[in-house]
Amino acid sequence: MLEKYSVRTDLALEEKERFESDNVEVQGVVVEEHYDEEREIRITKVRIETEKGAKTMGKPVGTYLTLEAPNMAVPDEGYHREISEGVAGFIGELLAKQKVEQKEFSVLIVGLGNRQVTPDALGPYVVDNLCVTRHIVKEYGKYAMGLKDVNMLSAIVPGVMGQTGMETVEIVRGVVNETKPDLVIAIDALAARNSRRLNRTIQIADTGIHPGSGVGNHRRGLTKETLGIPVIGIGVPTVVDAATIVNDTMENLIAAMESSETLKSVGEVLRSYNAAEKYEFVRELISPHLNGMFVTPKDIDEMVKQISYTISEALNLLFTNTEKVSKEQQE
Amino acid sequence: MLEKYSVRTDLALEEKERFESDNVEVQGVVVEEHYDEEREIRITKVRIETEKGAKTMGKPVGTYLTLEAPNMAVPDEGYHREISEGVAGFIGELLAKQKVEQKEFSVLIVGLGNRQVTPDALGPYVVDNLCVTRHIVKEYGKYAMGLKDVNMLSAIVPGVMGQTGMETVEIVRGVVNETKPDLVIAIDALAARNSRRLNRTIQIADTGIHPGSGVGNHRRGLTKETLGIPVIGIGVPTVVDAATIVNDTMENLIAAMESSETLKSVGEVLRSYNAAEKYEFVRELISPHLNGMFVTPKDIDEMVKQISYTISEALNLLFTNTEKVSKEQQE
Amino acid sequence: MLEKYSVRTDLALEEKERFESDNVEVQGVVVEEHYDEEREIRITKVRIETEKGAKTMGKPVGTYLTLEAPNMAVPDEGYHREISEGVAGFIGELLAKQKVEQKEFSVLIVGLGNRQVTPDALGPYVVDNLCVTRHIVKEYGKYAMGLKDVNMLSAIVPGVMGQTGMETVEIVRGVVNETKPDLVIAIDALAARNSRRLNRTIQIADTGIHPGSGVGNHRRGLTKETLGIPVIGIGVPTVVDAATIVNDTMENLIAAMESSETLKSVGEVLRSYNAAEKYEFVRELISPHLNGMFVTPKDIDEMVKQISYTISEALNLLFTNTEKVSKEQQE
Amino acid sequence: MLEKYSVRTDLALEEKERFESDNVEVQGVVVEEHYDEEREIRITKVRIETEKGAKTMGKPVGTYLTLEAPNMAVPDEGYHREISEGVAGFIGELLAKQKVEQKEFSVLIVGLGNRQVTPDALGPYVVDNLCVTRHIVKEYGKYAMGLKDVNMLSAIVPGVMGQTGMETVEIVRGVVNETKPDLVIAIDALAARNSRRLNRTIQIADTGIHPGSGVGNHRRGLTKETLGIPVIGIGVPTVVDAATIVNDTMENLIAAMESSETLKSVGEVLRSYNAAEKYEFVRELISPHLNGMFVTPKDIDEMVKQISYTISEALNLLFTNTEKVSKEQQE
Repeated sequence: MLEKYSVRTDLALEEKERFESDNVEVQGVVVEEHYDEEREIRITKVRIETEKGAKTMGKPVGTYLTLEAPNMAVPDEGYHREISEGVAGFIGELLAKQKVEQKEFSVLIVGLGNRQVTPDALGPYVVDNLCVTRHIVKEYGKYAMGLKDVNMLSAIVPGVMGQTGMETVEIVRGVVNETKPDLVIAIDALAARNSRRLNRTIQIADTGIHPGSGVGNHRRGLTKETLGIPVIGIGVPTVVDAATIVNDTMENLIAAMESSETLKSVGEVLRSYNAAEKYEFVRELISPHLNGMFVTPKDIDEMVKQISYTISEALNLLFTNTEKVSKEQQE
Repeated sequence: MLEKYSVRTDLALEEKERFESDNVEVQGVVVEEHYDEEREIRITKVRIETEKGAKTMGKPVGTYLTLEAPNMAVPDEGYHREISEGVAGFIGELLAKQKVEQKEFSVLIVGLGNRQVTPDALGPYVVDNLCVTRHIVKEYGKYAMGLKDVNMLSAIVPGVMGQTGMETVEIVRGVVNETKPDLVIAIDALAARNSRRLNRTIQIADTGIHPGSGVGNHRRGLTKETLGIPVIGIGVPTVVDAATIVNDTMENLIAAMESSETLKSVGEVLRSYNAAEKYEFVRELISPHLNGMFVTPKDIDEMVKQISYTISEALNLLFTNTEKVSKEQQE
Repeated sequence: MLEKYSVRTDLALEEKERFESDNVEVQGVVVEEHYDEEREIRITKVRIETEKGAKTMGKPVGTYLTLEAPNMAVPDEGYHREISEGVAGFIGELLAKQKVEQKEFSVLIVGLGNRQVTPDALGPYVVDNLCVTRHIVKEYGKYAMGLKDVNMLSAIVPGVMGQTGMETVEIVRGVVNETKPDLVIAIDALAARNSRRLNRTIQIADTGIHPGSGVGNHRRGLTKETLGIPVIGIGVPTVVDAATIVNDTMENLIAAMESSETLKSVGEVLRSYNAAEKYEFVRELISPHLNGMFVTPKDIDEMVKQISYTISEALNLLFTNTEKVSKEQQE
Repeated sequence: MLEKYSVRTDLALEEKERFESDNVEVQGVVVEEHYDEEREIRITKVRIETEKGAKTMGKPVGTYLTLEAPNMAVPDEGYHREISEGVAGFIGELLAKQKVEQKEFSVLIVGLGNRQVTPDALGPYVVDNLCVTRHIVKEYGKYAMGLKDVNMLSAIVPGVMGQTGMETVEIVRGVVNETKPDLVIAIDALAARNSRRLNRTIQIADTGIHPGSGVGNHRRGLTKETLGIPVIGIGVPTVVDAATIVNDTMENLIAAMESSETLKSVGEVLRSYNAAEKYEFVRELISPHLNGMFVTPKDIDEMVKQISYTISEALNLLFTNTEKVSKEQQE
């Protein structure tokens, strides 16, 4: 309950868990889970199907695929290859739903975030490792690539508003209007609700990137509405809002009181207060200095580097390795 | 003479010198020089006034201001302040010519080049140190800045084609169409003709950035024609084309022969050959492996850092420090 | 009280405040405060004079100077110059106490931390902007510098254990034994107790850098004991431990309860519990996932850049601008 | 012949070629070549066996293994794996010669060069991708790694003299004395003689790193003499000295003259001059502004990134993947 005052998550998965913990059934929301024990990879699909579901969840109608893997930040080439293939498969699934034909089309990758703040550098790092092809196809034609069906991959790192003086959506819309891609894929560092999810979770959604999400708080989203073409959002939680930690502490405090013999009565007192009283609490408890602060792990640099590489590989796999033209055909 | 086959310079100043060394008067081109002995700063203004002059110079009609200072890469705050003020003055002069009203207007700074290649990182570094204001003015109105006349400064680092798959002009035109600035100022690392000019020269031109110029060889320019609004180009030579070095050697060789008693006759023989024969020479002399190579100083990192800072300061001075609103007016 | 289970600060100033909030007089610790209203700079000197004081404070005997300035992260050249001069003065003061003669001596600057994690990059950034001179003096003699009294400034960025496989003290001791400086000055990003202090505080101490301090948790300190020469530590708090935030919430909770009419009784109940009971609380409240996590502001990149520049300037001022040899003497 | 005035190469391979082009047999130097046609990898082993050979070659007695592969800078994981394995094999071969036992020993990797100048960043980049283990073995013992035989890998990026004020050898010797590794492997960006060799060549030598070699011109070498333990040097040519280009032009000029009907006589005249006369030429031809300048390809960032990764992988393969302890033994 306290969450409503302070808690924020960019993960549909966590939004759903919130209701589960309250034993609330959410109308218009379908959840499927799959756990691959051997590889320790958990897949969750959250489909928000109705406006009612969207309102309850605080997220737009659409499909949210989440892949959780405990070893995502560990350097192990083979394992990452599997995750890259999984992510590529998910994006393909969403493209099919969007009826975007995956052969010979043009995609713009947008690396959101600030290269100079480690947990926000995920998007720029993903772009660093992409194999863009649009300029080659434009210049030499698709046979130059030695491929039959050629997608055109382009990419941009728009920067953050404090560096550019422009909304990200202004920059991206300008580039979209000028270069006419069929699809935008935007990559962003997210804020999670639970610190356990940091750097082991990738969310892929066909609803784009939304206001207030991400580490850098975009004011306006990158969506089909703002850009005029389908937008797939790929997000990795790399921080937790500092305010969330305070809220967690409150939750834990009440739980602790209830389970402690001596403090049971206090816990009960607290629980009996109404929302307004509780709100007074949280307002007092959250130091104003915590606004604009985030919580992040100490090894964030390694984690962001590793996961960005995995996502780049997924995009390279999906968009640059189409069927090879046989050598004869080329000649 | 040999230069015409192989030499390339982005500096109007050097283009002019080429003709001077041949004692040729260039019609339609006016040159003014000023040397400030105390501060060791040389100012050269090249005005290409006619199409004929433009054709001869291989550069469009317009004004090219060049500031040369031997200590530009030395860390000395006071000295750099003076250069920043000089550069700011020059830009103001060109704005006046362009009849761009310098009060309350909107300017987009474009940092061209590749942040990851040291001599090409000048543009991105300049943007790093700018104080952009457009988003603040948009959000809070100009009084938020405590200033009477407020310019809106925005900035973008578009990246290079090998990273984005897009022409730079596509990205910038998209952003211009979307955010409607009154003026673009594009900063680029240039190729000089003479290694003596590296990292001590700033050229400011009202003709924008042109095809084939810069370290990174943009294929299409950023000009009034391609963007629809005035474009001022600021360039700093940070490299010399490797082919230029070969040409210089040839030049020096002929000069050496002529001044050497024993080889005088050989020099005379060489000089007597016609253009076709000389061309054969140069073709043979330039190793194909030198294509796409550049010559740059070993302390290029310090130099680029220092000069980019000087240019950022010039832009901050010019566009963010307009007259303060008195405190009373604000309240 | 709860602090003793969970709270950590690298600032002597905050350690002192902890006792003040409990109205406890600490024996063997002398505190002087000075506030410069015009410039909004607060100076605090904490002198730990006895082993008893050291034990109570959890910090070694020595002098800890702290400079707090609210605008430290704001780009304003003049203001930063004043702070740089203040910091230079403080270091000079500590050198005098250490009886280190400030003329013609050799100092090694150590930039601690991880360049690739933004809040931990302070030390490396400081080294980036230093004007090292040792190699020039060694090569050409002191008259090459045009100065009468010449200090030799050298600098190293040792990296962090996860990148080097070595303890920082091993690397620095090796370099000290080889190059024989008279003094080490080590710069480190610190963890503060209070998020209000982030990026506006510089602590200068003649006790070096201690185990467990800093963002990166050095296991062994850089001190006169481990290096054999005096070590001055310069620290800037850039993060707060996530666990601290939890503790703050507890503190605020109890305070909130006491001041709230309806919850007064609960607060009293809590306050009446003994240490063991409180400990049970805190243990439960701190999520294990918070270990190794820190809280940092979103604009940390700008802050670290700005403050590192201020410290570099202080060191350059102090060690490279000694009295100039008159031109005649040089010739 | 002209070479003796101006040309410099860090590659033993190129030194050898110089004599071959003059049809000179070099006493005390043995060369073996092997070409793998399928993979297009050329292996050259130059063994300098006597002091006489060393004097002629201008390089110390020792073994120089060179691996050339045209596609070294192309991103192709499988291909790079093969090169990494080749490099690992070569290092193993040199270790065997040095009688360094490759089981359970301690190696310090030294990443030479300047991270901020792209063609000189090879060494630092290699260190960025290493899996150092020394601190883990020291802390938890070798069984913590789940391995039977455990090497201890440590690494340092000492920086360049202009940043540290110290000779690289001072820093490395200090660290070696303190941490007692059995072996140093130093990685450095080299200057090649021929621009064709850039970014496609890896040289591995058991003689360490020598004065005047590398992009950054170390004044004193890292060798068994200066460090007291065996030093293996790994070098990749990333630049050509600007002066070399001038010399090449001269060479080409003379050749061009001889093969050109009209200029034959001039070529003959030139060839007839004695060394002193030729020297006069070269002195005149090399502009003093070319000192301290280098020639490098425009895509140097991609190349350095790719090759550094290949070398890191070789070192990780060789030193961190020793035989696994079976699970039973561990428990």
